Amino acid sequence: MPPAHPFDDDKLKEECGIFGVIGVADAANFVALGLHALQHRGQEAGGIVTHEPEGGFHSVRRFGYVRDNFTDPETMGMLPGSIGIGHVRYSTAGNKGQTAIRDVQPFFGEFAMGGAAIAHNGNITNANALRRELIERGSIFQSSSDSECIIHLMARSLQKSIPDRMEDALRRVEGAFSVVAMTRTKLIGVRDPLGVRPLVLGRVGEGWALASETCALDIIGAEFVREIEPGEMVVITDKGVESQHPFRPKRSRFCIFEHVYFSRPDSILGGRSVYESRRQIGVELAREAPVDADLVCPVPDSGTPAAIGYSQESGIPYAMGITRNQYMGRTFIEPTEQIRNMGVRLKLNVNRALIKGKRVILVDDSVVRGTTSRKIKEMILDAGAKEVHFRIASPPTAWPCFYGVDTPQREKLLAATMSEDEMREHLQVDSLRFISLDGLYRAVGEANGRDNASPQYCDACFSGEYPVEPADMVEQGFQMKTAAE
Amino acid sequence: MPPAHPFDDDKLKEECGIFGVIGVADAANFVALGLHALQHRGQEAGGIVTHEPEGGFHSVRRFGYVRDNFTDPETMGMLPGSIGIGHVRYSTAGNKGQTAIRDVQPFFGEFAMGGAAIAHNGNITNANALRRELIERGSIFQSSSDSECIIHLMARSLQKSIPDRMEDALRRVEGAFSVVAMTRTKLIGVRDPLGVRPLVLGRVGEGWALASETCALDIIGAEFVREIEPGEMVVITDKGVESQHPFRPKRSRFCIFEHVYFSRPDSILGGRSVYESRRQIGVELAREAPVDADLVCPVPDSGTPAAIGYSQESGIPYAMGITRNQYMGRTFIEPTEQIRNMGVRLKLNVNRALIKGKRVILVDDSVVRGTTSRKIKEMILDAGAKEVHFRIASPPTAWPCFYGVDTPQREKLLAATMSEDEMREHLQVDSLRFISLDGLYRAVGEANGRDNASPQYCDACFSGEYPVEPADMVEQGFQMKTAAE
Amino acid sequence: MPPAHPFDDDKLKEECGIFGVIGVADAANFVALGLHALQHRGQEAGGIVTHEPEGGFHSVRRFGYVRDNFTDPETMGMLPGSIGIGHVRYSTAGNKGQTAIRDVQPFFGEFAMGGAAIAHNGNITNANALRRELIERGSIFQSSSDSECIIHLMARSLQKSIPDRMEDALRRVEGAFSVVAMTRTKLIGVRDPLGVRPLVLGRVGEGWALASETCALDIIGAEFVREIEPGEMVVITDKGVESQHPFRPKRSRFCIFEHVYFSRPDSILGGRSVYESRRQIGVELAREAPVDADLVCPVPDSGTPAAIGYSQESGIPYAMGITRNQYMGRTFIEPTEQIRNMGVRLKLNVNRALIKGKRVILVDDSVVRGTTSRKIKEMILDAGAKEVHFRIASPPTAWPCFYGVDTPQREKLLAATMSEDEMREHLQVDSLRFISLDGLYRAVGEANGRDNASPQYCDACFSGEYPVEPADMVEQGFQMKTAAE
Amino acid sequence: MPPAHPFDDDKLKEECGIFGVIGVADAANFVALGLHALQHRGQEAGGIVTHEPEGGFHSVRRFGYVRDNFTDPETMGMLPGSIGIGHVRYSTAGNKGQTAIRDVQPFFGEFAMGGAAIAHNGNITNANALRRELIERGSIFQSSSDSECIIHLMARSLQKSIPDRMEDALRRVEGAFSVVAMTRTKLIGVRDPLGVRPLVLGRVGEGWALASETCALDIIGAEFVREIEPGEMVVITDKGVESQHPFRPKRSRFCIFEHVYFSRPDSILGGRSVYESRRQIGVELAREAPVDADLVCPVPDSGTPAAIGYSQESGIPYAMGITRNQYMGRTFIEPTEQIRNMGVRLKLNVNRALIKGKRVILVDDSVVRGTTSRKIKEMILDAGAKEVHFRIASPPTAWPCFYGVDTPQREKLLAATMSEDEMREHLQVDSLRFISLDGLYRAVGEANGRDNASPQYCDACFSGEYPVEPADMVEQGFQMKTAAE
Repeated sequence: MPPAHPFDDDKLKEECGIFGVIGVADAANFVALGLHALQHRGQEAGGIVTHEPEGGFHSVRRFGYVRDNFTDPETMGMLPGSIGIGHVRYSTAGNKGQTAIRDVQPFFGEFAMGGAAIAHNGNITNANALRRELIERGSIFQSSSDSECIIHLMARSLQKSIPDRMEDALRRVEGAFSVVAMTRTKLIGVRDPLGVRPLVLGRVGEGWALASETCALDIIGAEFVREIEPGEMVVITDKGVESQHPFRPKRSRFCIFEHVYFSRPDSILGGRSVYESRRQIGVELAREAPVDADLVCPVPDSGTPAAIGYSQESGIPYAMGITRNQYMGRTFIEPTEQIRNMGVRLKLNVNRALIKGKRVILVDDSVVRGTTSRKIKEMILDAGAKEVHFRIASPPTAWPCFYGVDTPQREKLLAATMSEDEMREHLQVDSLRFISLDGLYRAVGEANGRDNASPQYCDACFSGEYPVEPADMVEQGFQMKTAAE
Repeated sequence: MPPAHPFDDDKLKEECGIFGVIGVADAANFVALGLHALQHRGQEAGGIVTHEPEGGFHSVRRFGYVRDNFTDPETMGMLPGSIGIGHVRYSTAGNKGQTAIRDVQPFFGEFAMGGAAIAHNGNITNANALRRELIERGSIFQSSSDSECIIHLMARSLQKSIPDRMEDALRRVEGAFSVVAMTRTKLIGVRDPLGVRPLVLGRVGEGWALASETCALDIIGAEFVREIEPGEMVVITDKGVESQHPFRPKRSRFCIFEHVYFSRPDSILGGRSVYESRRQIGVELAREAPVDADLVCPVPDSGTPAAIGYSQESGIPYAMGITRNQYMGRTFIEPTEQIRNMGVRLKLNVNRALIKGKRVILVDDSVVRGTTSRKIKEMILDAGAKEVHFRIASPPTAWPCFYGVDTPQREKLLAATMSEDEMREHLQVDSLRFISLDGLYRAVGEANGRDNASPQYCDACFSGEYPVEPADMVEQGFQMKTAAE
Repeated sequence: MPPAHPFDDDKLKEECGIFGVIGVADAANFVALGLHALQHRGQEAGGIVTHEPEGGFHSVRRFGYVRDNFTDPETMGMLPGSIGIGHVRYSTAGNKGQTAIRDVQPFFGEFAMGGAAIAHNGNITNANALRRELIERGSIFQSSSDSECIIHLMARSLQKSIPDRMEDALRRVEGAFSVVAMTRTKLIGVRDPLGVRPLVLGRVGEGWALASETCALDIIGAEFVREIEPGEMVVITDKGVESQHPFRPKRSRFCIFEHVYFSRPDSILGGRSVYESRRQIGVELAREAPVDADLVCPVPDSGTPAAIGYSQESGIPYAMGITRNQYMGRTFIEPTEQIRNMGVRLKLNVNRALIKGKRVILVDDSVVRGTTSRKIKEMILDAGAKEVHFRIASPPTAWPCFYGVDTPQREKLLAATMSEDEMREHLQVDSLRFISLDGLYRAVGEANGRDNASPQYCDACFSGEYPVEPADMVEQGFQMKTAAE
Repeated sequence: MPPAHPFDDDKLKEECGIFGVIGVADAANFVALGLHALQHRGQEAGGIVTHEPEGGFHSVRRFGYVRDNFTDPETMGMLPGSIGIGHVRYSTAGNKGQTAIRDVQPFFGEFAMGGAAIAHNGNITNANALRRELIERGSIFQSSSDSECIIHLMARSLQKSIPDRMEDALRRVEGAFSVVAMTRTKLIGVRDPLGVRPLVLGRVGEGWALASETCALDIIGAEFVREIEPGEMVVITDKGVESQHPFRPKRSRFCIFEHVYFSRPDSILGGRSVYESRRQIGVELAREAPVDADLVCPVPDSGTPAAIGYSQESGIPYAMGITRNQYMGRTFIEPTEQIRNMGVRLKLNVNRALIKGKRVILVDDSVVRGTTSRKIKEMILDAGAKEVHFRIASPPTAWPCFYGVDTPQREKLLAATMSEDEMREHLQVDSLRFISLDGLYRAVGEANGRDNASPQYCDACFSGEYPVEPADMVEQGFQMKTAAE
């Protein structure tokens, strides 16, 4: 199964997409469509749980794409009911290639008052401690997923209803989470108090849907109603949507990288088109870091909107100087006669006739390890470009994310060990510029840039300022930013 | 297996890509890479044949993508040798879904003087008559492919060498063909006298490669040497390239649709970047058919270069108003609660926040049946666009192709039964304009447009002027263009 | 996947085979071989768990045959370690075709003092009540298997060591069970106080093995040491075998049907060759129910030993009048021109030249629903037999088993609703005789037959006398035998 | 895919089974059933061809068992029509593991007067010469199978009808062959003049069937009419069966090994039950080679009928001392701690409790390489047998077969290099005796034994007297028996 993005081994990766629906016939078909629209948030595996009065809960969890697993009549026939939730996932850094099917969500638990299934996007930062405590009391974990803590906490709650038990459980949980859950009759959505990960509400016919992004509402023809608020829990039944705020209120800290890369360009975040925000990043970048050149080329596909913005602001023509092979694959056998940069050639090809003799501005969304940037630069030069200027649509990624994003260890991040200038030298390009943190904030609508006293977003991957202490990681020896840094 | 283009059931489709290499270690690995780069020319099946002195000829033919079939060490270990050829194919219109593995090329024949394998791109227009004649004489056909005639003609030739037998065979063949063939020691390339289908020569290390397009040379790090000329046969051995011209010379008639859609934008055709030709089509279109609007949006992905050209020429901002789902699939089960235009939603989503209230110019490469154009227009209007203007980067497709392209029967072509104005009404858009045939010729470099007395290209799909009589089709009742038309 | 026995839909079916080994290199390979030898006890799915110090516990569970799932180097490489256990299973009556992979054993639990895996053969008769209680306390069940109760009871035990927790757990469990379990360093075997299901101990090199039957010791070249005693728990470490008797002692009641059908003929049960016991059943049957005839034919393959005994005692020649097709399958499409008894013809064929005009005694192991017996009788008559006499190597099966055997509901058992004579009439054979319960006891070595006051075996399927009350079934409405019956 | 016989790598192997039917609805379903009954004659691959007026010829050819390939509605729906033929095959010695799907029969050829398909059981002894000649003339071979010569000879025949062309072709062919062929309206069956391989005719409803063995008639409920005679060609249409004798008459030489091992015991050959012939071999063997012992045990499964006969004639009790594992497999990974005779243990287990301390007569059908016999002897001794006596139900196999049977090269045959006494010593058994050639002839009904002047059967594998010169093999250096031998 080929990756969706040609270089996703050199990208930060969102780890999950979640979706739920209630009050529609054939809920599973809606969930499958919703997950298909969210596939970019997790391509390794997916699962759907539904419920109908006669047969109870039904569950199918599989490795691979939604389009391959949840489209045949036989499978979908195993998922009857008018309520359902689903989940798509990546494996996390620690478990690469070892994910078992038992790690694939939604997780299901049978409680004394009935069953519940949950799908979780985010990361529990005190999962290790919770797990130890639960095992001590006799809980048996079936997965290596931190999300399973939630269902065990619910099983042991003294509360009488499932929503109450979920509140009880989530109050013990630290970190970033958006959760979609279901009982026999209720669809439940929750966002953590900081609202780090997204969650939106939609209306579909007489029913309701919850999704990580609005593009998943679009695919099922649902109307976008509103975002679930940070710290809000909604309980949806056939009587409608009931809202609660069980957590202590905090200033929200939505993940700014959702604007930069994770979310689909056709989704709406915080009332803004993601595509438009990214184009605006290009505009800001052209203002902050202009350069004289002949062409502005995106690194496909994620650099495209910012490249368009950069071109429009700078007046330098936009061109597709790099073509992406639509039939990607990573596993071709290298011929004995060695091919330079073979890995990258399987995915991209430079438009030689276009590039030759030109001064080229390459716009990419981010630099993580820097390995890909280097190869692309070489391809461009091999094709005869006169100059190569990199413009990056995000600030230097210098810190790992612990809130549901797959990042390399800190020492693997290029920006953790080099200054912008050292990076330029390392990549051997004519110029390299990242957008400033203020420029990024402006592009996503904060006219005055970042409020350093109380930042409007979670930007820990750029700033090292973690809004929730990553307790498990600190226990394992992770060094937080010191005053000196 | 999802289609590469979201609407390839509403596109003309190139039927084959061919590739060959000689004089390199592990030829099969090169062939696999070359075919991977040519996958857009045929996604249904592929095959590779190699030869090495000890084990003789080796052959693997499979349904599916190159990346899935020719990447594991076990398969590639079955294909040793320093010479090899390969083929990727679509099924032709008549046999949709019935292709047997025995129809998958390269075809192989054992002759008295040794074996030969051939891979054919194009279509033999007198195949039926040839087949009848060969069966009458006792040949046994193993496939339903017209290409098999070539190998039987070779088997029965009185010539002494395989290249001579191939010449002998190809002189009996009418139609359009580019052929790559191999014996134990020779790599052979031929183009028909009109040069309808492409074929290029490259240098890789000490060896040589033949390919349908230059992008397949790029992926293996080969240097592009030149195009094989119309009517030329090259015989490549370890002594070098020997060129012959066995056919009676004619004015060449290269397929103009290769510029419009078939070839990859990063290939070079006739010395020109395909991307640049397509951008230029957009420029011409903006001149021929301007309209006042807010945004120029491509229908992804094939409309992109023309949309960029249209935007640059018109000054109207370019924007990605339609997002393509990278994880396409056609088979999701429709939920009972019907979703409007579900098929198209699986593949595309409109960027609602961007489109709302705007006058939008949509640039597409062609209109074949028109079914897709209609659905896209509806999605754009659903999203709140104020006006929708279609601009098409090719003239109306009014005639089927019989030279190796999969086209619907004539009566299914929208332009065969409607005028441009009727089409506009049929599609219910605010305006619809196709580039003119002259405009298209100008965009691909003919400054004076089409030479109607002796056209520079094969443009039968637009003009109905077939450079080679499609004998088999006429026999089956196809009506050629009358003087009146 | 074809069934092993041609008519296993008309047979009682053992539900599980278990195996464990400690103190050998590559334990998983031994477990795979042992399970292969036990495949007749469960063909639906199988699993293996191993442990080694570096990587901890490893587990692979799959649907299908051991020979297909646990033979490739890749899978076996996922199961390193010198200690391992395994399980093969049938689906139980209630869940036919719905078994999920999560129902496939061994089950694994992580406790505060480390992990343990268990494999269970038998049935817990108070599983429903236990499950309710455990859920009430916050345990989350992952399977529909009653065996999972054991692992949750262990998780909640207050004992400090895993063997102590297992004792604690098994004292809460009612029913029939043989269990093989493992920790990081210990292999544990337990049989319930009545010893209903088998479990044997073997010595393999410097290590030890536990298996359901001795044939699984033979395949790995292990020496048969002894049976685990009813009510015994053995804990095996690198220091040797330690035996405990944690349960209150009872008179043992081994399943007599293991002698009749479940166990393999080359296994040893209670010191006797199973083959020899079955041959002796034939001898007893010839004495109890003689008849004048020309041939004694087994219903292949399970009727063979008794048919040999019947022939030897009666002097009537033994012959293979029915041939079994070794390539069975049930799913051929019936041709329009209907074939009489097509289902049975796929599996068996009568040796027409042998049978024609003969008086034939057919020896079968049991009659469950009677559907197969009827079809076989018809085939024999179609082939021209003059008379057909059925001799059955077990008493009438009139009661379901609740101790780990898959039996139809009582009303589906032919003998539950008909007398021997009614059955003869129903099957339309010239004579039909079952061995008596006393005859069966004599054949398995009880010279004085059954001790009705205190039976030596569990023979509930014949007698309706259940040694352990099937509590869950009674709760669901099952009617125990009344004094009148 | 496990082998059907536990030691078929140490057995002679029939290479093909053929079947045809005409005049029935859903012919393919009948063919599938017939091939299923003939699966023992070829387990590697199978194919079915049918014809119906509308769609013409239909063909499906696959690797694997009939039960796995020709049972699903989708496949069978691809094979409509009321006439059909089929083939099951082994790979021949030379091509082990290299069989391509193009080598799988039936073969199909399109001739000027229409198509024909053929299925061939046997071997063409002058195939190499024919192939060379045909290629010289321009035929293109698609397979490595000698059977393909027939279809090319037919394509080049000057005759006007397909049956006439087949006659023409078969007159050029030397060797042993039974052929089933079909045109659009005719089912054709032919046996070579010596009648080496079997072919029988049956009546099914209003239609007719041709099959290698009568067991394939039984499974479809067809009535056995008669054997096709040596040198006979039958052409069956809706008007009935027409018989011709196109070849010069010769004394027939049916393969005697069909009686010994190849045919199923429930088939009828030459008017005799195969089972009964094999039992009679055991009777003859008991007379020729008596020995004092406690038990007669068959080597399962093929030694069973002869063991029964031996026991009945000698009065020594018959017993199943060796149990066959029904779930065979050869590929288990050997544990580091080596298991003695692991290969054989996967397939067989000795009934230790039965064998211990006994003098055992083992009856096997043949000794080819002798490797298996040796392992079985070791297992029996390991289990504690006091004496082991081998009795073989065929004479020493000292010569390879070139008439459609897979045999090792001569030097690999134990009997080619050792006397009976040397073999006994080699196998280290207490005694070893083969049935005499005369005894074998008597058992199959020749009361006076073998007519050495003009043998009634082909027994070349025992006698080295080849009824047709194996021309291709002699060309490759095979040494025929000299006068001295």
